[in-house]
Amino acid sequence: MRTSKYLLATLRDSPKSCSVISHKLMLRAGLVRCISSGLYVWLPTGLRVLKKIENIIREEMCKIGALEILMPIVQPADLWEKSGRLIKYGKELLYFRNRNNKGFVLGPTHEELVSKVFSKDIISHNRFPLIVYQIHTKYRDEARPRSGVIRAREFLMKDGYSFHINKESLQKTYNEMHEAYINIFNRIGLKFCVVQANPGKIGGMLSHEFQAYSETGEDTIALPIEFNNNFSNLKLSSCIKFTSIPFKEIFINETIRLVEDSSISSLEELISKFNLSVNSIVKTVLLQISTRYVKSPNSFLGIVIRANSKISDKKIKMILERYGYVLLSYVNVEEIYKLTGAQPNFLGPINLSVPLIIDYNAAVLDNFIAGSDVSGKYFFNMNWNKDILLPIIKDLCEESDVNFHNGGKSMPIMQNCTEIGHIFQLGQKYSNFIYDTVKKSSKNNISIEMGCYGIGITRIVAVLIEQNYDKNGILWPTIIAPFKLVIIPINMHSSVEVKKVAESVYEKLLQMPIIGMDILIDDRQEYLGTIFTDMELIGIPHMLVISDKGLTKGEVEYRDRKSKNVRKVKLNMLVDFLNKEIFYL
Amino acid sequence: MRTSKYLLATLRDSPKSCSVISHKLMLRAGLVRCISSGLYVWLPTGLRVLKKIENIIREEMCKIGALEILMPIVQPADLWEKSGRLIKYGKELLYFRNRNNKGFVLGPTHEELVSKVFSKDIISHNRFPLIVYQIHTKYRDEARPRSGVIRAREFLMKDGYSFHINKESLQKTYNEMHEAYINIFNRIGLKFCVVQANPGKIGGMLSHEFQAYSETGEDTIALPIEFNNNFSNLKLSSCIKFTSIPFKEIFINETIRLVEDSSISSLEELISKFNLSVNSIVKTVLLQISTRYVKSPNSFLGIVIRANSKISDKKIKMILERYGYVLLSYVNVEEIYKLTGAQPNFLGPINLSVPLIIDYNAAVLDNFIAGSDVSGKYFFNMNWNKDILLPIIKDLCEESDVNFHNGGKSMPIMQNCTEIGHIFQLGQKYSNFIYDTVKKSSKNNISIEMGCYGIGITRIVAVLIEQNYDKNGILWPTIIAPFKLVIIPINMHSSVEVKKVAESVYEKLLQMPIIGMDILIDDRQEYLGTIFTDMELIGIPHMLVISDKGLTKGEVEYRDRKSKNVRKVKLNMLVDFLNKEIFYL
Repeated sequence: MRTSKYLLATLRDSPKSCSVISHKLMLRAGLVRCISSGLYVWLPTGLRVLKKIENIIREEMCKIGALEILMPIVQPADLWEKSGRLIKYGKELLYFRNRNNKGFVLGPTHEELVSKVFSKDIISHNRFPLIVYQIHTKYRDEARPRSGVIRAREFLMKDGYSFHINKESLQKTYNEMHEAYINIFNRIGLKFCVVQANPGKIGGMLSHEFQAYSETGEDTIALPIEFNNNFSNLKLSSCIKFTSIPFKEIFINETIRLVEDSSISSLEELISKFNLSVNSIVKTVLLQISTRYVKSPNSFLGIVIRANSKISDKKIKMILERYGYVLLSYVNVEEIYKLTGAQPNFLGPINLSVPLIIDYNAAVLDNFIAGSDVSGKYFFNMNWNKDILLPIIKDLCEESDVNFHNGGKSMPIMQNCTEIGHIFQLGQKYSNFIYDTVKKSSKNNISIEMGCYGIGITRIVAVLIEQNYDKNGILWPTIIAPFKLVIIPINMHSSVEVKKVAESVYEKLLQMPIIGMDILIDDRQEYLGTIFTDMELIGIPHMLVISDKGLTKGEVEYRDRKSKNVRKVKLNMLVDFLNKEIFYL
Repeated sequence: MRTSKYLLATLRDSPKSCSVISHKLMLRAGLVRCISSGLYVWLPTGLRVLKKIENIIREEMCKIGALEILMPIVQPADLWEKSGRLIKYGKELLYFRNRNNKGFVLGPTHEELVSKVFSKDIISHNRFPLIVYQIHTKYRDEARPRSGVIRAREFLMKDGYSFHINKESLQKTYNEMHEAYINIFNRIGLKFCVVQANPGKIGGMLSHEFQAYSETGEDTIALPIEFNNNFSNLKLSSCIKFTSIPFKEIFINETIRLVEDSSISSLEELISKFNLSVNSIVKTVLLQISTRYVKSPNSFLGIVIRANSKISDKKIKMILERYGYVLLSYVNVEEIYKLTGAQPNFLGPINLSVPLIIDYNAAVLDNFIAGSDVSGKYFFNMNWNKDILLPIIKDLCEESDVNFHNGGKSMPIMQNCTEIGHIFQLGQKYSNFIYDTVKKSSKNNISIEMGCYGIGITRIVAVLIEQNYDKNGILWPTIIAPFKLVIIPINMHSSVEVKKVAESVYEKLLQMPIIGMDILIDDRQEYLGTIFTDMELIGIPHMLVISDKGLTKGEVEYRDRKSKNVRKVKLNMLVDFLNKEIFYL
């Protein structure tokens, strides 16, 4: 492809409105444009990346025998009414009536529809297990779309479904799908981990989430101590998603008790009186906040941190902003007394009926001490998820405080993550759709087990960028890059020789099978600075710089975008060099 | 692919509800399933065909420098309000409000959105002409979805858009796109023609439709006399779409006049008195009809045929059915007199305020004679589209009457067609979206010309089937077939030798680049009859039958699905034979 015939659509400056790095780079590098809150147009460069992810998914789905299909986005609402999800799914399900006053929804997922459609065919063809999937547009009516394509209204998903005549067959496919997901994310080059998801949500059956490391991720995962920044080490279930499953039992070894001592009026007195470590105490701070846009009645938020930590104003504000709120003030002593009847030291999470956010360091504690919201009374031996459900966990304190220690014990590493995949064993939850269809047949006594398997394709692009960028732009893994290699001819429009060689190299590479599609030549009449800035921003991993100077020695210059390594390559060795050292990637 | 691992989803019997052959075959061959009126699931076999059409389109778009993008299906309604189409587009535009009460539409097309999104990038990068396209789902809230995927609510389209700084550039891209469409439809193997579409609809600019021959098509095209059943002969503008553009001026050479002669009371008297040819007279028949499902108040329909033609009850009923109506009765003499005050002989299209359908043979007449709806008065020298707008044209009469003669003059051939592509020169119709965006820049005095270009991808599958089937099923062109070749081992599960050879042939073909993806082996434990029935129904163009009998002679049998030709091929020559005679297709 020639840049003169392409639409780079790069932006010199970051759009002011976006705070998330991946969103900023996706706009600047010309991957997407926002048309309305949560609705994005994928430009040529962005679509090239999407298609490569799609193809890796297709190949891995094919390997485990999953068949590709295409289901409508618009679904009859009566299917959702029957499954009970028309109400249960909540406001994210977009419902509308068509011109004939019939109810429809825009599909955020397809369990009902796929069960209804396939039941007859799988049974009449006795086709078990059947694994189908589609790669198609989904819609969720998000209240507050944010973080660019990560939490958009319309997005691209791979959603797969499997049908089985027994649990063993379901478990086998579930395992194969699990393996396929690991292959997919590894091939894409993602740093990710697998966590067992809350089983309560889907009725006691198995479910796993695939979580990718992402600075701005909304989930918090505790990585195991042996993690050592090596994601490929991570084994199934060795990670914990903080917000959805309880801590391991090992943390909880004592029973909570209420300790009363009216002589205590400060933290220092508490520590000295009971001979405690300051590391075992949490304090609770009350904030007054307001929604950002609509001046709604002010509301309160509780922040729980370790007693010796210092709240970071900046972090608090950033977190509130992400949820659409602003910080009005820290509630002072008089107001706390007016609201709770207690001194500020005795504030604690258990009896405080306001939303809570917990700092990492406080979240990893066990058998800790907290206020009881009654002056002179403390809870001792408190444990999250036993005495109080662990609320949202965030990094709330000054950097120097983030140490994750717990009285000398090794602690897990806390990591912000974004969910990129989710697999479920659904059991017979949607079976009534299947049995209704075949009620008239003689086979209505069979029991069909079902699994479902999702991958968020569009958000993978954003997460990949969060994992791979530098100050100049994106650092794509070669396999996913919109173009693998760019030829940059220096002064092409004035040097006959450079133009001749550049065009001949381009033509030669263009002829290479598959690779040919991924070669770019920057033939614009632009400043050299603009060309390099654009190519680094877009993140093309490999560059060939062709200049008069190099050509006098019969050389071109190869540059690696990520390592910034430069190598001189003899022209007659070029294709060989590229094949051996670059294109095998 | 092995049929045992695939989902054929073939049906033994035709579903009763569908009358259109392509719809019937698409259901029976397991290409699609209907989930709700106008909403279809594409099963593996159907999706394979769709993807092949998509890829041909992508290749041809790439050749003319069009860049692929992806736009959201959900569009902000304010864009449509601004263009005036929120109202103008009519009820087929699905409008909804989201949870924040903001208005959106499900995009049936994307002119507004693409103009708004791209204006800034094309102008700032000075990137003219820019041609972009997407292949994505569209939604039209059809009142009466019908003919399977041909008139569905949700469907797949290629929609392309181009931006230019002058009319010459637009015309150049328009011509290239026109050529690309011809290449696409030729490669797919469609019989089609190009007609100039009604220019009035888009304000005097140019527009062409690509119309494919289709028994059940809703459009009627007059093919030129030299057509001779050879679609590849057809040149641009040599066809006329009856329902959208006027007859050529040449037909109209006299002025209408009202002739009064109260002595005439019958057709015979009229002919003998004025020495007329019966071929120059039309008669009008009044029908009483009702909507099929809802018993609405009965309404009337006028039918205009040649005076010597005989209405076909069957055809009338079929046409009404397609529009959701049923025939109640032919209105009799007394009722006509009551309704119009005229004798039935004097009924005519001009003063009759009921919807009209015109028979082919009546539609091709010029300077003809018709009743005036006043007894004793006839209109002479009447011409369609001059004295009265030509209404819907259909084949309404008994077969023997369809002769298309007009007083010895050669007449065009009338052909039912389905629109598969449409290209428009839009001019500056959507320019306000572009100028708004760049109003602040210094370049706001440029004028941007725009073109748009659509292909209905899902309906192409149906139309292809209508052009290619026999009593056993579909006859796919090889390039589009879901699988190019099927290996049918006879008694594979009892003959060790057949199994061995079949598997080895399958493995060998599987390794072939590209072709390998399109090889099927029917390894089911099924009756041979079922296997052949399925494979012929699905329409796999090439079959290799491997049997013990053949193997004793070192042969396999090759069968051509369409011609039914059978050839014995030596096993050691098989790959060579396939490469030379089959796969080059």
